[in-house]
Amino acid sequence: MDAAASMFARAERARFVSELVDLVRFPSVGADPLRRRDMARCAGWLARHLASIGFDRAEVMRARRVGQDGHPVVYAEWRGAPRAPTLLVYGHYDVQPEGPIGEWSSPPFDPVVRGGVLVGRGASDDKGQLFAHVKALESYLATSGALPINVKCVFEGEEEIGSPSLASFFAEHRRLLAADVAVVSDSTQAPNGRPSLTYAARGQVALDVEVRALSRDLHCGIFGGAVPNAAEALAAILARLHHRDGRIAIPGFYDRVCDLDPRERAEMAAVGPSDAEVLASAGARAASGERRFSLYERQTARPALNVNGIASGHGGAGTKAIVPARASAKLTFRIVADQDPADVARRARAQIQRIAPRGVDVTVTPRILVPPALVDRRHPAMGVAAGALARAFGAAPVFLRSGGTLPAISALQRVLGVPCVLMGFATPVDRLHAPGERFSLASFSSGIDACIDFYAGLRRRSALRGRSSFSP
Amino acid sequence: MDAAASMFARAERARFVSELVDLVRFPSVGADPLRRRDMARCAGWLARHLASIGFDRAEVMRARRVGQDGHPVVYAEWRGAPRAPTLLVYGHYDVQPEGPIGEWSSPPFDPVVRGGVLVGRGASDDKGQLFAHVKALESYLATSGALPINVKCVFEGEEEIGSPSLASFFAEHRRLLAADVAVVSDSTQAPNGRPSLTYAARGQVALDVEVRALSRDLHCGIFGGAVPNAAEALAAILARLHHRDGRIAIPGFYDRVCDLDPRERAEMAAVGPSDAEVLASAGARAASGERRFSLYERQTARPALNVNGIASGHGGAGTKAIVPARASAKLTFRIVADQDPADVARRARAQIQRIAPRGVDVTVTPRILVPPALVDRRHPAMGVAAGALARAFGAAPVFLRSGGTLPAISALQRVLGVPCVLMGFATPVDRLHAPGERFSLASFSSGIDACIDFYAGLRRRSALRGRSSFSP
Repeated sequence: MDAAASMFARAERARFVSELVDLVRFPSVGADPLRRRDMARCAGWLARHLASIGFDRAEVMRARRVGQDGHPVVYAEWRGAPRAPTLLVYGHYDVQPEGPIGEWSSPPFDPVVRGGVLVGRGASDDKGQLFAHVKALESYLATSGALPINVKCVFEGEEEIGSPSLASFFAEHRRLLAADVAVVSDSTQAPNGRPSLTYAARGQVALDVEVRALSRDLHCGIFGGAVPNAAEALAAILARLHHRDGRIAIPGFYDRVCDLDPRERAEMAAVGPSDAEVLASAGARAASGERRFSLYERQTARPALNVNGIASGHGGAGTKAIVPARASAKLTFRIVADQDPADVARRARAQIQRIAPRGVDVTVTPRILVPPALVDRRHPAMGVAAGALARAFGAAPVFLRSGGTLPAISALQRVLGVPCVLMGFATPVDRLHAPGERFSLASFSSGIDACIDFYAGLRRRSALRGRSSFSP
Repeated sequence: MDAAASMFARAERARFVSELVDLVRFPSVGADPLRRRDMARCAGWLARHLASIGFDRAEVMRARRVGQDGHPVVYAEWRGAPRAPTLLVYGHYDVQPEGPIGEWSSPPFDPVVRGGVLVGRGASDDKGQLFAHVKALESYLATSGALPINVKCVFEGEEEIGSPSLASFFAEHRRLLAADVAVVSDSTQAPNGRPSLTYAARGQVALDVEVRALSRDLHCGIFGGAVPNAAEALAAILARLHHRDGRIAIPGFYDRVCDLDPRERAEMAAVGPSDAEVLASAGARAASGERRFSLYERQTARPALNVNGIASGHGGAGTKAIVPARASAKLTFRIVADQDPADVARRARAQIQRIAPRGVDVTVTPRILVPPALVDRRHPAMGVAAGALARAFGAAPVFLRSGGTLPAISALQRVLGVPCVLMGFATPVDRLHAPGERFSLASFSSGIDACIDFYAGLRRRSALRGRSSFSP
């Protein structure tokens, strides 16, 4: 580790935290069309910040997908080390919607530090983790005026909606973004406190389901018993999407799901969280899903279908005696190798149409389509990252699968041809996507140290040759 | 009909409509705790209005139920006809919640008149119908300074939440409210435009269902596939509350449902709406429910269960990738003789608990419990009402069942021992409980005429002796 950079980071810790608070303050909910301006303001703040700490070039770039502008990408580069390798640092400044607001103990976009923990939407996913890189880079630039390697930062604004513009952005700027390796800090460590390197992420298929049973809501006294009810039709559909044994009830859904290798299952059982740890970190009384698999396997290596939300009729105070005309649900599939997101979306749509009750119209609209991702555990940069994590967090990392989706990985691998290191600093208790999202300031500091160490380790040309010998 | 009163009503029609607009303007949603003051303001306006048109006594009275104050009752009386019978006029000034607001073409509490129709929440249910009585009474008082009969008005504020305080209010003021007959104008006419006398109303059992699967929402990538999902658990419960043949799947639910008399079925088929008329007035493409019965029978003479609303997780724009911790549904049963609301609530709760998926907590809270009601079709006041409707609307009325619930009926019959005439002026296209609720000004005028005629008809003491010979 670079001692000067590391000492600087320690000395400036209070300022770093206060800047992270400023970053978390932006209500950068990419899914919310009313927050488009907040998204642009957040991107602008980040670009200016990167310029101010010494990047040669730092700017807000347009991202486009078919038919529309996406949320902008913040790009910055420092290329002052011509003989050293080039690292692409990926992160995202967009965050999940903050609701239900009543379950936050402090306002989601008015972040507070309590007991060494920063609470706010995006604190860990992904602003805190992204900012650990930014502050590690600043610590080098402020102390030696240079970085040990060339660095290209790509901070996008559409991760939480499935990164729909990212592959086109990469394709459009293939030459600009050329790099030897990419690092993504957007994942969580092991529940026992050990750091981790993530080697697999599930893909994602998000669908909106709309049921229309009537042309308008009706008085349930006058019409109840004689006409279809949209809420009941939706419930009937959703209830038929899982078999009783926990499997997803869509014909052909499992056709392309790869079986787990027995050796990997053994490794997962050895290093992954136990069923009890998963339930404890979930705050759940009971498990759910496919009984043949451990909870860690169900979370990460097996596909899943979740209803994320349902809405129909009267949700307010008191009673409202209606037959609701319409109902809607938001569904998310997590898929695994070798499932194809478009194929899953097609099958799901067909099955939902097939099981819809008579007399109602059902529309299924795909919103997110992301393939599953696997990274090369033996890439030499993995060994560099493992060493950096071990020194910064005081324990050797383990290889973990993530159940979440990192759309950037497949785009980085397929479009840019860059191998990826997934080095997360959040922990399983950080309430990612939930009310009360948080990031421990200890993780923030150790994350900065790990980044400082990782960059230094990559400087050696040899660091990117051969195969990593690290194994947990 | 009293010619002077009728001419007065015709001459003052524009003012009457403008006063009705003022009444509809109050957002008197009794179910909404935030509108308590609007409820009180609406009650005060009505009481002052009744005093201003010549009632001897007009006041806002407290209504209480176990443990809390209810919304106030407006009471007014005119007792200047000592030898004539006494009529109790019942109505309600509370209205249904107005949502979904986006489906109103004009603001629900900023009523507008368009093409001879008044559009606003409560226009027909029940402010417009109640006001037809008020204006008929005014028309007498303004022209002859007297009414043909003694009148007691009881306008309550809790009908749309099941009239929880009404029976206690009646019991507390039994002597004050003594009357020979009661009239309730809170129902709809036949779909073919013929006026109607309602002789049966279904009872109501409303329940809130709350499902709790987790202590907090979780990231559906990280946890999806391993933990229970509240939205899915709720859907599984709701999907099992109906059999495939449309019957309600609660053990013992039909035990006390009276079979329909074949003669009544024949009469219903002859005078009631056809299946096609029901579907057309519902704006529904397909029917639903118990196939053995006509839609009119399913709507009115058979019990029904409707999910009025469901809510869980993310209902806003875009995607939110969570496993929702909680889900809720509002359910309304319509019940028929001889079902008992408390028994139905008990059975429903037990069944919902029984079918709840493992690992989730389910709470069922009864909100409304109202027994079904039947009135005596041969009461002599029915004949008086039939004549009044025939003259005012230009067609002989038919006897209809209502599928809705009129909690006042059983309280009037059981607590006060007063026979009831249910004479509705709204029509099946008036969108009761739905966005765009409306009341035709022609119905308002004819309703006033019918009331004027009805009061005059009741003056003859003989009008309340013997049996009505009216039959449709």
